[in-house]
Order: sequence, then C-alpha cells, then structure tokens
Amino acid sequence: MDRALRKSRTQPNIVVIGGGTGSFVVLSGLKHYTKNLTAIVSMSDDGGSTGILRDELGVLPPGDIRQCLVALSESDQLMRDLFTYRFEEGTFGGHSFGNLFLTALEKTTGSFAQAVETASNILKISGRVVPVTLTNNQLILKRSNGSWLVGQYAIEEAEFQTSRHPQLSLDPEAPLNPEAATAIAKADLVVIAPGNLYASLAPALLTQGMGESLQRTHAKLVYICNLVTKPGQTDGFKVHDYAAEIERFIGAPILKYVIYNQRQPTKRLLEKYARDGEYAVGFDISTLEQAHYESIGGELVSDTIPRFKRADQNIPRTFIRHDSDKVAQLIMNIAAIDNKSKIA
Amino acid sequence: MDRALRKSRTQPNIVVIGGGTGSFVVLSGLKHYTKNLTAIVSMSDDGGSTGILRDELGVLPPGDIRQCLVALSESDQLMRDLFTYRFEEGTFGGHSFGNLFLTALEKTTGSFAQAVETASNILKISGRVVPVTLTNNQLILKRSNGSWLVGQYAIEEAEFQTSRHPQLSLDPEAPLNPEAATAIAKADLVVIAPGNLYASLAPALLTQGMGESLQRTHAKLVYICNLVTKPGQTDGFKVHDYAAEIERFIGAPILKYVIYNQRQPTKRLLEKYARDGEYAVGFDISTLEQAHYESIGGELVSDTIPRFKRADQNIPRTFIRHDSDKVAQLIMNIAAIDNKSKIA
Repeated sequence: MDRALRKSRTQPNIVVIGGGTGSFVVLSGLKHYTKNLTAIVSMSDDGGSTGILRDELGVLPPGDIRQCLVALSESDQLMRDLFTYRFEEGTFGGHSFGNLFLTALEKTTGSFAQAVETASNILKISGRVVPVTLTNNQLILKRSNGSWLVGQYAIEEAEFQTSRHPQLSLDPEAPLNPEAATAIAKADLVVIAPGNLYASLAPALLTQGMGESLQRTHAKLVYICNLVTKPGQTDGFKVHDYAAEIERFIGAPILKYVIYNQRQPTKRLLEKYARDGEYAVGFDISTLEQAHYESIGGELVSDTIPRFKRADQNIPRTFIRHDSDKVAQLIMNIAAIDNKSKIA
Repeated sequence: MDRALRKSRTQPNIVVIGGGTGSFVVLSGLKHYTKNLTAIVSMSDDGGSTGILRDELGVLPPGDIRQCLVALSESDQLMRDLFTYRFEEGTFGGHSFGNLFLTALEKTTGSFAQAVETASNILKISGRVVPVTLTNNQLILKRSNGSWLVGQYAIEEAEFQTSRHPQLSLDPEAPLNPEAATAIAKADLVVIAPGNLYASLAPALLTQGMGESLQRTHAKLVYICNLVTKPGQTDGFKVHDYAAEIERFIGAPILKYVIYNQRQPTKRLLEKYARDGEYAVGFDISTLEQAHYESIGGELVSDTIPRFKRADQNIPRTFIRHDSDKVAQLIMNIAAIDNKSKIA
C-alpha cells in the first residue's frame, strides 16, 4: 500500500488482543497504517524472567506488555534496544531489562496500570497498551482424567492431545480491565493475534466479561491463525480447528474474518520445525467455504529469519514468523470494506 | 538568597568533584543557583549493588554516577523515585534500579560515556555528569607493614589508623577523562565535595592528570570538609587534617577555600554516632588562621534526618548530613567575590 493511499483514508480504530510475540508482529505492521491502535494484552504469563519477578516481587506479569510497548514505540532505536535488552550472565542472566523497568515502575507508582502508562510515555508509543485484567491470576487446565495443570508456563510445556478441547479457567476469576472493555466497544476492528492457543490467547479470551464485550461491540472480529502447530497440543489442527477453539473461548461463533497463510515456509525451516514435531498449519478449502466467517488466505510467511542473542536461546521462539506488513495490509483491507460487502 | 538576587548574577561555572552521597548534597543545593554545573564522579566504587554489577557484567561502576544524575534531574519526582528505587527482595534484593538502568544502557550502547549521556537526557538533568575516568580500575592501599588492601569497599571497611598517611594508588593507572579536564579548565570554581576521604575522594583526585588539571586551572579550588570522623581511618582528624590529606592527593597546596561546620549536631545524633566511634570533626581556629587557604565556618548541619527504606538498611549511611542550601549559599558567595578580595 503506498503512502498516499494510507493517508487518504480515515484511520480506523483497531484493537489487537493477544500475548507478546504474535501481537508484536501484528502491531509492528499496523502502526504504519493507523495511529488508533490499542493492544489488549494477556496477563497470565508466569514463565522465565516474568515468572521470577511475579514470584519474588508479587508484581503483575510484565513480559507481554513489554513486547507490545516496544512494537508501538516511536522512540529512537536505542530506547527500544534498551527495553529489549536481556542480561546475559550473572545474577540477572536471562532477565529482560524492560521487565525490570516495568517491575520497578509498578513498585514505585504502586500500580501496574500507572507503570504501563509511564512506560508508554517514556517509549513514546503510538496508540495504547492495556492489560486485559489488573487481577493477579493464574491459568488452570483441567485434564480429561480430572487432574489439573496450574500456570501458563506449565500448560505451555505440557502435552494433552488426548483431550482435544481442554477445559481452561482463570484462578481467581479475572474481570476485564474497564479500559479494555471501552476500547473494544469503540473499535472498528478487533484482531485476535496469532499466539499460543491454550497458554496465551485462551487466558486473554477467558477474562470475565471479554466474551460479552466481543459479542456486544459493532467492531468486526478478525482472527489471524497461527503458522505452525504445537506438538502435544494442536497436532493436526487445521485453520478451522484453530478458529473453532477461539470461538469456544469467546463463547459464541462471532468471528467475521479468519486470515491464514497459504504459502509454504522454506523447506529448510520446515525441516527444522519437523524435528521438533511442529508442522505448517494446513487448510481445508471446502470446510472454510462453508464456515460462517470469511476466510482470507495470503502469502504471510516472513522471509526474514529472526536472529537470537545468546541470552534469548533458552526461551522457546518461533523461527517461522508472520510478515508484519502483509498481515497489516490484509487487516487494513478488511477495515476499508463496508460491513455488508464481501471480500472479492 | 532570594530569587531576585539569584537571577541578577551571571551564573558561575562550577565543577563538583566527589563520589555519590556527598556530591548529591552539594549538587542538590547548587542546582538552584546555577545551571553551569558539572559533576565529576569518582569511579572506583566496587561495593554493594555496584560491585556485583562490575564483577558479573564487567561494567564501569554506576552507583555514584546515578546519585549525581538524580541530584541534577529536572524530571518529575516519579522518574527520580524510579532511578533511586531499590529492589527489596528476591534475586534483585538490594540492587538499585538506576544501577541496572546504567548497566543495561552501557551494554546496549557499548559505552559507559554514552550510557551516562543517554540517562542524562532521560532524567532531563540540568548540567552534566562526567565520570572522572573511563578506565576500569581499582583502588589499592599499601599499609605501613607492606601489605596491600585492594578495592574501594575493602578500604572503606578497613582500619589503618596506625599509618596516618596511607599510600593509595589506582590499578591500572586511570587517565583523567578528557571531558573532565575540559570542564576543570573552563570552571570558575572547583568544589571538592565531602565524602569518604580515602575510599571515595582519593581515587577521584589520584586519577592521572587530575593534579595537573587542578594546578593549571584559573578556577578557585574549594574543599567542603566532612562533618564526622571515620573510625579506624580519621579518628581525631580536625578540619586542617582533612585539608592536608586532600592536598596530598592533589600533589600541591592549592586549596583556596575550606568550608567547615561550626554547629554541633543534636545530642541525640552525636550519641548515635559515638556508639559507632564517629565524632563531629573539630576545628582549631589558630591553625586555620595560619593556613594558606581561607577557612569559612558555617552552621552547615541539616536539621532533616534522612529516612531509610528497608532495602537501604544494610548500606552504611550518614545520618548527619550537610544542609544543601546553606552549603550552596557559601559556595555562591565565594563565586561572587573577586579573586583577589577576601571573605569578610
């Protein structure tokens, strides 16, 4: 999309719901097309640097918030590098400086919401970053055998393919942040970002009041499907399986658009993934054509392979990433069409 | 000094040399009188949070720099609170957030000087903060029995009163930061702040080229004497003993003014100190009258007793503090008088 075209339109009001990495990619693309952006961020992370800070200092989880702040930052590269910096060794090895920043701000201001607002100013973000809830909670998964898995990290690491529709809940029940509810109500478009289905998207969508907010808003609801399956959790899942689970969490079949990838990643990347049991998410055209939502395929895989620093290597990361700009263009096309017309 | 008087004068160019706490007090006062302020900061600290960061991450010591940045910050209270915030427990217990900030900035920018400059911008400081050297060094003390004490922290904790003129040096030799040399050359006044004589002021003054810079500048050299003695190091020291040691480190008898306290701290504070072997620094009028420098006594003890948070309690702190504004007023009076006249 050329710059003239971008400017010729009224900028749509877009809300992006998700965790860290997936929202980062979507927000990084969208911020070049609209300033009316709100990131609503999952708040159940309890692994890695974030988990240690939660455990030891009793703060709300900063990790996903940090990634969204950096995505929307209009600050110079140095500030974004600083926020992303991870200590490589010693007492702080593996800790992200941005997480410490948010933690110290929460302690200094006495409020996570205030911490996010202050960090937003320091990073000069375009748009807003809003925690999905301000209640300290943990994600619970009830297995089919009755046993429980407690905590996002434990759930992210577990295998539970025997029960294909795992029962998830938040403990304690976490009410939707009123600021998030307002943003959803005012949006033209609500985008559910790609991300870990059970450990990251589920806790955001299961927040108390989220389903009602999404059903009540006039915004079009768009889901961007993952690129690869997660072994032991979504093996064999196709695009419509992901969409069905998203709607199960929301509590109603209200997705209006599902964006998915049609382009196979490079053979080299696929082989790298297959070694870990991960495979490109397939799609079944006839099933998608019969769905109540509009499905939009695109060549959405990024050609850039992210490089990881030493301090990042013990953190699970996706090498196959969405192309930020291509995803943003599809979203903007949806935002541009009339509510009642269909995509060609 | 009323505001009209402050503004009616050309603001003098003042350099303050010292460590953390003492410089903090002097700078906090002076910044209300002049914007032409440069803090030249001792760089041998290796204790506490700073020491751990140096050991584990190989960075230059951030602690004293942080205190000077906060003293000169024109930012809102929140940013200054954030920079001063100390984690209270867990992995980060005892670490100052400002130290982590400077450390992450040094790692991100690849240069401590750049880190200080960036932090200066973020904290909107009035004036400049300049590390006395950019060479990673440690302070060495040679005892009279030939044994060595290595490191500022070890020296700060040691007792060596048997040799009253301990031999100190830096290893490796640390050249004066050219930016510090330029600031001294251009100054109207150079102030040596109160502080730990052997562990904090000595390493700043022993930096290679500092003595020559101080002898060459046309600036008037002012020393602000400590309020209390340090057991095992300066027991029984009077004002002129402190001044003599300062001139020994500089390598020439070039102090022009020595500011000292005439007012006894409250009995309660004195008793608190006496339990730790610390006593108010005495002064001997007849000796001071014969000295080559002008001595200026004042009622310089602050009436405010600083409150310490839990995280700060394992750090040695002075309860008897200089009154920032009174010290600043005396310095401004010196700056205002003609080079050749005398103080009344």
